[in-house]
Amino acid sequence: MDIREFEQAAARLKNVIHYIPVSSSRTFSEMSGSELYLKYENQQKTGSFKVRGAYNKVASLVERGEKPAAVVASSAGNHAQGVAYGAASLGIKAAIVMPESTPIAKVKATQGYGAEVILYGSCYDDAYQKAIEYANETNAVFIHPFNDIDVICGQGTLGLEILRDVPGVDVIFVPAGGGGLLAGIAACVKMINPRVRIIGVQADGADAIVRSFERKELVTVPDIHTIADGIAVKSPGDLTVGLINKYVDKMVSVSDEDTAEAILLLMERAKQVVEPAGAVSLAAALGGKADIRGKKTVCLLSGGNIDVSFIHRIVETGLIKHGRHVKINTIMLDKPGSLEKFAHIVAASGGNIIKTTHDRQSSTLRLDEAILQVTCEVSDHDHGKRVIKALKEGGFDSFIED
Amino acid sequence: MDIREFEQAAARLKNVIHYIPVSSSRTFSEMSGSELYLKYENQQKTGSFKVRGAYNKVASLVERGEKPAAVVASSAGNHAQGVAYGAASLGIKAAIVMPESTPIAKVKATQGYGAEVILYGSCYDDAYQKAIEYANETNAVFIHPFNDIDVICGQGTLGLEILRDVPGVDVIFVPAGGGGLLAGIAACVKMINPRVRIIGVQADGADAIVRSFERKELVTVPDIHTIADGIAVKSPGDLTVGLINKYVDKMVSVSDEDTAEAILLLMERAKQVVEPAGAVSLAAALGGKADIRGKKTVCLLSGGNIDVSFIHRIVETGLIKHGRHVKINTIMLDKPGSLEKFAHIVAASGGNIIKTTHDRQSSTLRLDEAILQVTCEVSDHDHGKRVIKALKEGGFDSFIED
Repeated sequence: MDIREFEQAAARLKNVIHYIPVSSSRTFSEMSGSELYLKYENQQKTGSFKVRGAYNKVASLVERGEKPAAVVASSAGNHAQGVAYGAASLGIKAAIVMPESTPIAKVKATQGYGAEVILYGSCYDDAYQKAIEYANETNAVFIHPFNDIDVICGQGTLGLEILRDVPGVDVIFVPAGGGGLLAGIAACVKMINPRVRIIGVQADGADAIVRSFERKELVTVPDIHTIADGIAVKSPGDLTVGLINKYVDKMVSVSDEDTAEAILLLMERAKQVVEPAGAVSLAAALGGKADIRGKKTVCLLSGGNIDVSFIHRIVETGLIKHGRHVKINTIMLDKPGSLEKFAHIVAASGGNIIKTTHDRQSSTLRLDEAILQVTCEVSDHDHGKRVIKALKEGGFDSFIED
Repeated sequence: MDIREFEQAAARLKNVIHYIPVSSSRTFSEMSGSELYLKYENQQKTGSFKVRGAYNKVASLVERGEKPAAVVASSAGNHAQGVAYGAASLGIKAAIVMPESTPIAKVKATQGYGAEVILYGSCYDDAYQKAIEYANETNAVFIHPFNDIDVICGQGTLGLEILRDVPGVDVIFVPAGGGGLLAGIAACVKMINPRVRIIGVQADGADAIVRSFERKELVTVPDIHTIADGIAVKSPGDLTVGLINKYVDKMVSVSDEDTAEAILLLMERAKQVVEPAGAVSLAAALGGKADIRGKKTVCLLSGGNIDVSFIHRIVETGLIKHGRHVKINTIMLDKPGSLEKFAHIVAASGGNIIKTTHDRQSSTLRLDEAILQVTCEVSDHDHGKRVIKALKEGGFDSFIED
């Protein structure tokens, strides 16, 4: 592997992809004690970096005179759209095998880039097997999502951009997954400047690649549980792990809670929507997973394809965590006027009731009591406490439910 | 007013603000039938365009030798942060009067830019009066949010950027509110190229500036109701309305529903968080408020300071509208095993139950019946219908609640 391979990949990609310059972030710099920059690949075509590797793979085949009649890939996510877009840009037919459970929105997005979508099987492994079969039967070239040197070189072009965008960069946090993006960036950056520390970030619940790095051998994790679906990989690749062992300085993993918090912060402060797999890098930087105090730090936000129902859940959790939604439990006298008085006190304290349930059937209650459970919008934790205080002063025995 | 005033303002702002180039959008181009570009001022310092006018105002005072000891403004929103940041950049003390109900997050953000925050009164009008008093008592200069020629020139610098970013632009949609942004951009663009159509966009529920444009006189609307708090203005300015009458081609208004849909689309497709006042421009373009077929169109997304609890509500509504959350009502036999069988059918159909309520007390029910209300996560409308079909085949009389 040679730095020229990355430069050639960058030249191929130049007029195909977006170039999104890094943004410095005052907020995240203050929070991390470093000089922190964000690289927004969520703004990339197809919503993630995957188009880089996919296009580079197909374009390399064409340049080598191996122009395929068609390509095929298996993916329910970003790789599907990356391959579809990359192949279409070169006028080559693409077939994408997706699990049958894939949401229609993702199927349509992939078809929107001109690919044929084949729905097959109940999980990724089924779809993968079907894609390999399809390749064997039709002579289409199978595009692996990460364990392929041309794919790795395509993803690695982000290393060139980061070095150009942030002269003197000290540390780069990169989401790991199967390792294509991480291996590419690490190899590219280290060949140019070995001083730059590369830190791979994975989700706690799918840390095969972290264990592979620690043991210096391929580790497979059979059960994976993480919200970061884009990097939920059971078995990393031998090619990628080899490069990661050679070029990466440190591998860390982050909790789903920290990832969700990073997504919420990116929405609130940076006004950007980033998917869980893309936000693990910022979660690691803010979570103190490496010493970056006073250093020039880049967090690569690798994609933005997050499901709306997922944003909904993250925001909901965040509202409670930040004290914006408070759940109040009150034992009240079960008689006319109680609820009215309760509602009056909450309103006078500036709280907005958005949900109530009423229960008279708890065994701990006297016959003249009821439990009222209320969810209330407030400004912050202190406001929530003020509402509780007012309720207590008004004779309502209330407490906040965690 | 002279084009040089805009150029001077741009020169003053050059090293103070971010320059965010326009982005072309394939999705929104297809949806609108135009060649559509988005100008993301949500990414601007302080999260909105307001810093342009505020800084230009204060810097102009300094240049004219009228350097104030302090400035004061009243605002619960973007103008507060714009003035705080603008004054701090010039080393001038700023006081911001905010209504007492202002969320702590906004107070802290404004203090974070170095301003003194004075909490006063129950509404904007109270805070405004207090700020005027403060100015009279302390000799601080009051910075009006829109009815000020230096403020207007600062906001108008966006016109220069749009003309430079999109050669041959035909139409620009601009959020209206009090009219500072719209008047500035319209005057600036028309002085350079009168061929470009400027369309001002306001919220249906606060359309004083639209009526002012139609009647060619200042109209005040006493009661305003809109989710677009950033442009919820009862009385536009005489200066701004004068310029708008002279330079703007058309004024339109959009519904809160269309604005919410535009916000959701921007999150899903463009991976960007835009506030309601900032998204009305896209809502107007997508809602066919002007003929833009085949035209080069720019939508100015003026800010991104949207409250998280508000994102929550928009996403929640969007999930139901897009068929991702489906509310199912079922009348079932009130006996052991009914719920189990119901839950089994939903799970086997791929639905995920996220909320249930059970009611035996409806007068329309037989004594052996209960109503089950379930909210269920599904892939889309069709998936929701498949779940209903499976329930009916399993003997459950189910229907979707709108």
